[in-house]
Amino acid sequence: MIRTTFIGAGNLAWHLAPALDNVGYPVREVYSQNPKHAAALVGRLYEAHVNISLDFSASASKVFVICVSDDAIQEVAQKIILPDNAIVVHTSGSQPLSVLDDSGSQNMGVFYPLQTFTKAKKVDFKNVPIFVESENADVEKALVKMAKAISGNVKKINSEGRKALHIAAVFASNFSNHMLHIAKEIAQQNDLDYNVLKPLIAETLNKSLEIGPEKAQTGPAVRGDFEILERHMEFLKENPELAEIYRLISQHIIDSSGE
Amino acid sequence: MIRTTFIGAGNLAWHLAPALDNVGYPVREVYSQNPKHAAALVGRLYEAHVNISLDFSASASKVFVICVSDDAIQEVAQKIILPDNAIVVHTSGSQPLSVLDDSGSQNMGVFYPLQTFTKAKKVDFKNVPIFVESENADVEKALVKMAKAISGNVKKINSEGRKALHIAAVFASNFSNHMLHIAKEIAQQNDLDYNVLKPLIAETLNKSLEIGPEKAQTGPAVRGDFEILERHMEFLKENPELAEIYRLISQHIIDSSGE
Repeated sequence: MIRTTFIGAGNLAWHLAPALDNVGYPVREVYSQNPKHAAALVGRLYEAHVNISLDFSASASKVFVICVSDDAIQEVAQKIILPDNAIVVHTSGSQPLSVLDDSGSQNMGVFYPLQTFTKAKKVDFKNVPIFVESENADVEKALVKMAKAISGNVKKINSEGRKALHIAAVFASNFSNHMLHIAKEIAQQNDLDYNVLKPLIAETLNKSLEIGPEKAQTGPAVRGDFEILERHMEFLKENPELAEIYRLISQHIIDSSGE
Repeated sequence: MIRTTFIGAGNLAWHLAPALDNVGYPVREVYSQNPKHAAALVGRLYEAHVNISLDFSASASKVFVICVSDDAIQEVAQKIILPDNAIVVHTSGSQPLSVLDDSGSQNMGVFYPLQTFTKAKKVDFKNVPIFVESENADVEKALVKMAKAISGNVKKINSEGRKALHIAAVFASNFSNHMLHIAKEIAQQNDLDYNVLKPLIAETLNKSLEIGPEKAQTGPAVRGDFEILERHMEFLKENPELAEIYRLISQHIIDSSGE
């Protein structure tokens, strides 16, 4: 049994803390800037309590999991007071391991689950890839073990690799979703029901996951149909930002398909 | 029973012709510039044969379905010789009804299934929205009936609405898929396995379809995390086209989330 403590009670902690709590990594303390959020998360755990400060010098926990927004990690690392020999990790895709330097710990690591989390939606960690990093071999081993307790897909990665992975994830997740957002806006602005696009979206993305995005590409750009591309940009001209996004992605599809 | 003829034997005809053939719209003739392609499609049909010219003056068919690439429709309309009273339709999302004017027919229409088609992948037309257009009320009625014979989701639309719908579809399908293509390239260029992104992609897009893309958005842009955005663009600087795509989409996410 390895006791853990969570700093932060947002979307990731909401799912990760109970997952660990259930498999031999009981969560003893939860800290959040907003104690109500910490209390809500404590309600999902067996024997945790709310810690109202970042002073954990008397804590019995071994692993401290920092689940705060990227730009708040360093401040937490500066303020946190850890018990002796504790391991401290952050869970960010985009921050280097060194953002924890100010914690003064010799046992630093990264524990990065590559998934999107929303409080309302249940997550099955079994299928969530978890990427582990540490410069300390013992810490790395402990974190890999902790990751394997909840996920069937655990990998080691360094900070540079993790940054590349995070950028790829931004395109794969945030940007693909934003393309759907734009489609919805165009539909609504033209009195069309966005729902009619859903079977197309589902089929496209299932096909893409199955045969690969480079083989799944269709549409005017990959066909090199410049007449249609012109007409579409003409249609979008009242929204120059959208027209430019249309032009740039179409050009990139054309360039990519020639490879 | 209403006899039909297909002009073109590409991905759409490959699925649409058998679907109609099975529900009281027997396909009698298939024409393709490449007679081998026409013969392959004929092999999927009950009693069709290959027509080696666009002269259908002696045809017993009532509905002629032009399933060729967008920029070839007008040429087919110019060359085709139709029997009296025949209905002629094209199946393009992006071409106006008027592209068929040169056919000389008084019975023109559009029959646009909003889906992506690949020969190797079976399509269930029941869930494919079909958009019908005609300026002739009798033709419109006949086409709606034909569409309802294969799909549970049939709508009327005019050429302007169809153009907007097609542009929305380009963002929703072609561009979202291209974001996955870019993610795959970034992963490969950094010796990362693209497959680790698949659970994230599936979860993101399922969530987006469920709660709406505007609510499903996550990542540095919607959080307004400019430090990460800068760092990512710095990482992409050796590929200026990608860096510009990253910048423009991130900016648009920021602008959209402020609405």
